[in-house]
Amino acid sequence: MVTGSIAIDTVKTPYGISENCIGGSAVYFSMAASFFTPVRLVGAIGSDCPFDFAEVFAGRNVDLTGLEVRAQSKTFRWAGSYHDNMDDRRTDYMELNVLAEAPPRVPDSFKDSKFVFLANTAPALQYQLLQQINAGSFVAADTMNCWIQGHLDDLKALLKKIDCLIINEDEARMLAADSNLIRAGEKILGIGPSVVIIKKGESGSIMCNSDGEKFTLPAYPATEVKDPTGAGDSFAGALMGYLAQSGKTDFEMLKTAVANGTVVASFAIADFSLAGLTSIDRTDIDSRLETLRKITHF
Amino acid sequence: MVTGSIAIDTVKTPYGISENCIGGSAVYFSMAASFFTPVRLVGAIGSDCPFDFAEVFAGRNVDLTGLEVRAQSKTFRWAGSYHDNMDDRRTDYMELNVLAEAPPRVPDSFKDSKFVFLANTAPALQYQLLQQINAGSFVAADTMNCWIQGHLDDLKALLKKIDCLIINEDEARMLAADSNLIRAGEKILGIGPSVVIIKKGESGSIMCNSDGEKFTLPAYPATEVKDPTGAGDSFAGALMGYLAQSGKTDFEMLKTAVANGTVVASFAIADFSLAGLTSIDRTDIDSRLETLRKITHF
Repeated sequence: MVTGSIAIDTVKTPYGISENCIGGSAVYFSMAASFFTPVRLVGAIGSDCPFDFAEVFAGRNVDLTGLEVRAQSKTFRWAGSYHDNMDDRRTDYMELNVLAEAPPRVPDSFKDSKFVFLANTAPALQYQLLQQINAGSFVAADTMNCWIQGHLDDLKALLKKIDCLIINEDEARMLAADSNLIRAGEKILGIGPSVVIIKKGESGSIMCNSDGEKFTLPAYPATEVKDPTGAGDSFAGALMGYLAQSGKTDFEMLKTAVANGTVVASFAIADFSLAGLTSIDRTDIDSRLETLRKITHF
Repeated sequence: MVTGSIAIDTVKTPYGISENCIGGSAVYFSMAASFFTPVRLVGAIGSDCPFDFAEVFAGRNVDLTGLEVRAQSKTFRWAGSYHDNMDDRRTDYMELNVLAEAPPRVPDSFKDSKFVFLANTAPALQYQLLQQINAGSFVAADTMNCWIQGHLDDLKALLKKIDCLIINEDEARMLAADSNLIRAGEKILGIGPSVVIIKKGESGSIMCNSDGEKFTLPAYPATEVKDPTGAGDSFAGALMGYLAQSGKTDFEMLKTAVANGTVVASFAIADFSLAGLTSIDRTDIDSRLETLRKITHF
């Protein structure tokens, strides 16, 4: 199960522009996770939303029971642009709209979800969403700089309740107040989660857990990078989808989950919006996973 | 055999200051390579040089026949400082001194060297040094932004004569005029060398060859980083030392050589000047290599 945003995105990169396309953390996550496992999506849109989600996820086992269409509301809109270094992004405008309202309700039929991802939103809302889930699930969350700076107590309360934080490197440094990423990861473990995964964009990721185990993996060396939007949520989606498929969360399984996240993110960034993910199947993922193994092992 | 600088360094980092300490590319390279193979050092110093190199390399099988002491010259001096992000360095001052003179002569007894590293200097000088070596050796070189910007023709002439370029990521992007590092590596292969290794500091390295093979490895996740000076030359030293020990340069051997370079660089940056390297032995390197394998394989 994923809770997160559904967005109308406008994205500019050196390779072109994609206007009013489908986006949002819950959408990228669901698409990525659906290669591995059935997905339950929780999110809200307004009456202006032009997308037919049954069509978007056709053939993908994504349960849309938790998709709320709010007649009086408008859908979240985001516009951003990427410059030469595709890791740097600028938000051109943002309309929170439905994201500024109460969070969506988790349907009763979703409350027994065993793998839950709380995509980035206010940590107090992530906490409310989490309280609607039965105990005993493996819960991962994302967050971002504005919550670390402005809502740190809420975030720390959330971190005590989740199993895994998946976070960008700059945010990890900010949250831990430590410029060294390894020490930053260890400090964040001290706040609560038993696993911390730090995303470094083009430079890959680092994972550590409360047993002192570590894992580090470069990004897949992609030459096709047209639109990095959704890379982090695709990474998290494939990671959580792979764990859900296996039913396990030991460190060896987490390593392969990170590798699958890395591979699916590399497909997501190859084209605009969801096109990088809708043009592949599980065979492509498995094949690139083998390539990643070959080019990283010595 | 290595040709490169011998320096009197003054380094400031958030962890302290090290004044008038031993440094220079040939020194770091020789120390790192000496864990794996006998080393031949070619470099020049002035009469002011305070270091006893027989003492510095005591017990390490570093042949100093190619060390020229020039009575009328002064030793290269460099002062730099590192700020919170230890990957960013500022040169505070630099006196080229002996480095602005004719390059040192390669002793006759060194001309049959099978593995040669031309550390960063003007590409025309690297070319002159290379012409003194017998054909048939595996030659790697480093370069930097000022030669790419100001002496590109010289550099391209050099690249046609060497086997392997070891270069920083910003310099690779500049040399290839491509912001994507994988494409940049491929474009540099097109200029001449059969292997390109791109160093990404805290983010590891990428290697590609003219047969289309690729390798990518994260940096060792070090929590002790006191002084990054010499990391790149220690990386190159261990890499070339490992190759020389094995006598092979196939891609599988190059992968393990890069991993050894990664490990030795992680020791080099743990302390000021050479202290990170003089405090370890081959057992420490082998042990950390196994850890690196464990935390990167899935």
